[in-house]
Amino acid sequence: MRLKIALLLFLSFLTFGVRSQNTNSEIDKKVSELLSKMSTEEKIGQMTQITITSLEAKGKPGEFDLPKLNEAIQKYHVGSILNVPNPGAPTIKKWNEVITTISSEANKTRLKIPVLYGIDAIHGSSYTAGATLFPQQIGMAATFNTDIVKKGAEISAYETRASSIPWVFSPDLDLPRNPAWSRMWESFGEDAYLSSRMGEAMVKGFEGNDVGSKYNVASCMKHYIGYGSTTTGKDRTPSIIPERVLRQFDLTIYQAAIKAGAKSVMVSSGEINGTPVHASKYLITDVLKKELGFQGVVVTDWKDIIYLYTRHKVAENNREAVKLSVLAGIDMSMVPEDYSFYVDLLDLVNKGEVPMSRIDDAVTRILKMKFELNLFQTTVANLKDYPKFGSQEFIDASYDAAAESITLLKNNNAVLPLNKSEKVLLTGPTANSMKYLNGGWSYNWQGENSDTYAADKMTILEALQNKIGKENVLYTHGADLANFDDAEIAKTIEMAKGVSKIILCLGEKNYTETPGDISNLYITASQSKLALALSKLNIPIVLVLTEGRPRLISDFEENMSAVVQCYLPGNEGARALADILYGEVNPSGKLPYNYPRYPNSLEKYNRKYTESLGDDEQNNDAKYEKSYSPQFEFGTGLSYTTFAYSNLKIDKPEVSNSDDLKVSVEVKNTGKVSGKVSVLLYLSDKVASITPEVKALKRFEKINLASGESKTVSFTLNQKDLQFVNNDLKWISEKGTFKIQIEGLTQEFTLK
Amino acid sequence: MRLKIALLLFLSFLTFGVRSQNTNSEIDKKVSELLSKMSTEEKIGQMTQITITSLEAKGKPGEFDLPKLNEAIQKYHVGSILNVPNPGAPTIKKWNEVITTISSEANKTRLKIPVLYGIDAIHGSSYTAGATLFPQQIGMAATFNTDIVKKGAEISAYETRASSIPWVFSPDLDLPRNPAWSRMWESFGEDAYLSSRMGEAMVKGFEGNDVGSKYNVASCMKHYIGYGSTTTGKDRTPSIIPERVLRQFDLTIYQAAIKAGAKSVMVSSGEINGTPVHASKYLITDVLKKELGFQGVVVTDWKDIIYLYTRHKVAENNREAVKLSVLAGIDMSMVPEDYSFYVDLLDLVNKGEVPMSRIDDAVTRILKMKFELNLFQTTVANLKDYPKFGSQEFIDASYDAAAESITLLKNNNAVLPLNKSEKVLLTGPTANSMKYLNGGWSYNWQGENSDTYAADKMTILEALQNKIGKENVLYTHGADLANFDDAEIAKTIEMAKGVSKIILCLGEKNYTETPGDISNLYITASQSKLALALSKLNIPIVLVLTEGRPRLISDFEENMSAVVQCYLPGNEGARALADILYGEVNPSGKLPYNYPRYPNSLEKYNRKYTESLGDDEQNNDAKYEKSYSPQFEFGTGLSYTTFAYSNLKIDKPEVSNSDDLKVSVEVKNTGKVSGKVSVLLYLSDKVASITPEVKALKRFEKINLASGESKTVSFTLNQKDLQFVNNDLKWISEKGTFKIQIEGLTQEFTLK
Repeated sequence: MRLKIALLLFLSFLTFGVRSQNTNSEIDKKVSELLSKMSTEEKIGQMTQITITSLEAKGKPGEFDLPKLNEAIQKYHVGSILNVPNPGAPTIKKWNEVITTISSEANKTRLKIPVLYGIDAIHGSSYTAGATLFPQQIGMAATFNTDIVKKGAEISAYETRASSIPWVFSPDLDLPRNPAWSRMWESFGEDAYLSSRMGEAMVKGFEGNDVGSKYNVASCMKHYIGYGSTTTGKDRTPSIIPERVLRQFDLTIYQAAIKAGAKSVMVSSGEINGTPVHASKYLITDVLKKELGFQGVVVTDWKDIIYLYTRHKVAENNREAVKLSVLAGIDMSMVPEDYSFYVDLLDLVNKGEVPMSRIDDAVTRILKMKFELNLFQTTVANLKDYPKFGSQEFIDASYDAAAESITLLKNNNAVLPLNKSEKVLLTGPTANSMKYLNGGWSYNWQGENSDTYAADKMTILEALQNKIGKENVLYTHGADLANFDDAEIAKTIEMAKGVSKIILCLGEKNYTETPGDISNLYITASQSKLALALSKLNIPIVLVLTEGRPRLISDFEENMSAVVQCYLPGNEGARALADILYGEVNPSGKLPYNYPRYPNSLEKYNRKYTESLGDDEQNNDAKYEKSYSPQFEFGTGLSYTTFAYSNLKIDKPEVSNSDDLKVSVEVKNTGKVSGKVSVLLYLSDKVASITPEVKALKRFEKINLASGESKTVSFTLNQKDLQFVNNDLKWISEKGTFKIQIEGLTQEFTLK
Repeated sequence: MRLKIALLLFLSFLTFGVRSQNTNSEIDKKVSELLSKMSTEEKIGQMTQITITSLEAKGKPGEFDLPKLNEAIQKYHVGSILNVPNPGAPTIKKWNEVITTISSEANKTRLKIPVLYGIDAIHGSSYTAGATLFPQQIGMAATFNTDIVKKGAEISAYETRASSIPWVFSPDLDLPRNPAWSRMWESFGEDAYLSSRMGEAMVKGFEGNDVGSKYNVASCMKHYIGYGSTTTGKDRTPSIIPERVLRQFDLTIYQAAIKAGAKSVMVSSGEINGTPVHASKYLITDVLKKELGFQGVVVTDWKDIIYLYTRHKVAENNREAVKLSVLAGIDMSMVPEDYSFYVDLLDLVNKGEVPMSRIDDAVTRILKMKFELNLFQTTVANLKDYPKFGSQEFIDASYDAAAESITLLKNNNAVLPLNKSEKVLLTGPTANSMKYLNGGWSYNWQGENSDTYAADKMTILEALQNKIGKENVLYTHGADLANFDDAEIAKTIEMAKGVSKIILCLGEKNYTETPGDISNLYITASQSKLALALSKLNIPIVLVLTEGRPRLISDFEENMSAVVQCYLPGNEGARALADILYGEVNPSGKLPYNYPRYPNSLEKYNRKYTESLGDDEQNNDAKYEKSYSPQFEFGTGLSYTTFAYSNLKIDKPEVSNSDDLKVSVEVKNTGKVSGKVSVLLYLSDKVASITPEVKALKRFEKINLASGESKTVSFTLNQKDLQFVNNDLKWISEKGTFKIQIEGLTQEFTLK
């Protein structure tokens, strides 16, 4: 085995030297030659993806059942394997062995087509022990810094390839419309423009200039499309999105990622308007493949072809479900625990119910990706090539991301930064566990084992103790995330009496997908009770939130002196938080969503005018409640310094329908410390035939300003920025007045 | 004046004798003759509707400013006036004077075209003092008894015509998808089939066989279309409804009402998918007028053309807004406080921007309705024709409706019916006011004055005192609807100590439209606190709800022994409730919506399978919470007797695509008292190309069974029942298996 690895590594070394000759047309030629040699069975095998856990020896977690592996690869010709062996998160050495075993089995096949391994590397190479775990995507969005996002993906790619894995199921391009959704935190938040820029940066970070290099991986856009917009907010429940809306918002994010080169896409497990996306030829073939020209691989999500008949009930049986989805344009089925897809598709092809042209399209895409990833040269990493795996450099990058993501939402009377010499009470159920910093997709699916795998990382308690000394940190957990414990609250109150500040850490358990479903957006009652009890002490409270979605805090928010949103900041999050709490880092994150105040008032920041009527619309016949009043609005993010905006300029008061528009604004740090700030440009179309949004984010740029320093930030708007999708599903702009808004400044211009 | 009235009455008497000759073609001829004589100004005047309050003398509520009236009718030729004079709810005598004054002004015009008066007669002739007020529509739906609904509309028509008003803005055909919506209670609930049957019954009740008779009125379907489905649940905010969904559900309700003869329609104030309905030529002209063949008048809602530019921002100014909406197909503008519509439309027509053909279409529809309503013969009622106005017969009908609507949701240990000799504590903020029984649209817009106008009607307190004697009813209000009052709670607790049962009345303030917006579906915290405090006493509590929408009670529901949903039961509601509480009436209402348990779990009963996955879908990797668990499901309604269902039969196991299917079931009253029950038939399409609903209501029939009595209830399903709207917007059925469900019984059949 070792010799074989050495040989592969030698070959791969050679390959890297000649990669640049591996042009698109050469690959196309190789693919077409290989395809012509393949049997129907071999082709369908390529379209079959199996979970590694189904190949494990019974009772021996992490060990192959070799006859099962043999059966998968020799009998069913499976083209792809995914997921993490039990009990989760192998070391790179262990991954090396796993992939070597698979490769050696693949090498025994007639055509020696390499197996494509895919993994949920969600916030870093999160299924590899010792890898660098970043803030989850929602936090990355809050940095409003595309460089940080790109850098994070580069590191994730490096460490995933170090794990001998060339394909990651990331980025998440979902546009969550219901903040209660359990995968809110896997997204870039509620704005399509922000998501597009961040998704693009992430794809570029993963794939680099040469996706086949030993430091890059193929990305997978997910979950095409409309997955994040379920009506009820529950995972994998129906979405209602008119096509006009889908095109104006959701689709633009995929367009940006495809343009950035994304090699694959995973299909949404949900339905849109009654049609499961896995069964939609229109969305997969007509829109994605044809209209958007997507050339990559379309893979299903977990078991989703089977679910077409067991859950969605659009097919009578598996055979119908396979036919429906393959004809819709699915290239690869994440079956993933049996060979039902293979068996039924083979029968469908043999009986002429699925044409070979469709199979060839799918297999061409898969083989092309394998060639592009250089898997025909090597599938196993040479560990010596990855000296930076888990290195301080990478850890620092994760720290930087956390530091730029953490968002200061409130800071009454400048309670923050704290004074190191002051004794504090640290309390709350999320204060002393890595699980609540990492969330799901960490070491295993639900992220249950972060405290074991990241035992060397600091919890919030540890980071605070490290920062100001154990003697200055009183700690008790205060409350359970779910269950009431009045005795513990009483104990916490007692402890609080000796301190001048309380740091209260509240949030959510670790979760993802359906296990993370909630029916009530309020933060759990046990936590709310602790917050209300502490509120009565008249000691300033700094509320630190670690949560995947904005759990409502309006029952006690007014009693909090400061609110710090950490999202799910990853392994270095607590250190970054401590540095922010004590003023060693000036916070610069901004909320990538509206933080709601009430559970039945979930308006987005880019609402319509009818959703936030002004006082001028009130009348005397009745008392109106203000309908739009989020707890914190999209873009909120305080700093320890102050920034003054001035001199908002546009280069012309009128534009034709081919002109660009240059916008500039001067930003000055008018406070005493240096600080970063992301300058956000919003546009409003004052009148339009489709009711216009109150405002829409069109540009942002993060800058760093020393105390007293000024910079001029320039943006260029183009015609696309003035457009929207009309009822004929066309992008159009209409003559009239537009308003640009940067902080409190506005400028209007006219499209002639 | 009096002489003129007498003459009119005489003429009208003559007219009624010859009405049957007033055929459609005769009316068309008259309309066309009249139209040919009209000037452009006169035509546009017909399209203009003004609120009567804008014609009032300053500082003299209820009195005309005669020059203003003259200006409206002589100068602007207004064709229609609406609304109630200040301070609200005139007597029929006062209405008689009001309409006489308007008529006499109209009679002075060149062509003597009568003014069409329109009114919000929402649950009875609710803007007339002394009229019979019924349960609000949501309660009428809960009767699951179309006869009661039709009867109610007949009485409402009678009393509205007695008020000299020939046109009511009712029924409400909205299909609320968000239960937090402030007009939920004005609808027939969440099911399109139930709404269709009820809407149809109401139209027939209003319009009768001859809408021009002195006992019938023209109905107005509202609010076309999609108004009730706003994403956020706030009134007049955007709806997102794909056309497929709109056609499968919302549109069917209008189709049924149009088929029943509805003479007019009011347009939704909202937008669907970015297009305000008032600006949608597609929805108004192409779908409503052309495809559905609607021949009646299309009127705007309050100020909605103006709002096209001030709120929706799809027009630059009023002139554009008028052009947009009239070209979209609006026939009459509820302007209603100025003549901006008249002025701008006249200019648009004069400049050729709106063709005369469009104006003629609008005016033809309006004149036709005026002829059909016999307004050219008489506009003023002869009060002697209306001896039944406010009569005991009508009051009894309202009582019957309330008695059949009140819904027993829970009755642990048969705590109900109560024993008359038992002393009870009656408490809660809704226990002693008519406002909370009637809600909005009662005597005035927000229903603030029910206690004055309905002073002779019984509140819950009065009805209970009347039922069991004052000495047996301890009463204190217990809590305010909005504000905390701990002293009052303490007092209530003290009083409770002397009783063996508590009747706790909770609910909502009176409201409608935007003033009724809420951001939190939970019942108010002040009420919740009272309920929790009383829960600790271990005295059985009967929770009585009077509320327009299902405010969440899950914080204390488990501590309630019984839950009685009254909705907004109207003026006789408290008497009906008392009779139910003491077993003199056996409850038979059923919930016309899912009563949610949590604020972020608002699934409908006819959800998709993916919204309520069974235990078989759970897996071992994580703990799943049950996602579908309403507090009470659609159709829930207990009785004091028990009904056994048996012998569910279908007449054939297979149907072709032209067959009807006969279904029968035997229902037996197996308890000790007689009772009514609505038998509900649900259908499930087991597999379909659009993900099928778990079940959908297809038929219902309410029957009365004496103790021990059995009846066989028969239904006939037709092909339409098996159909759904596909992605091509066609109604289709697909071969396969269907399941019929009546109570616990099921039968399957196959469509071949």
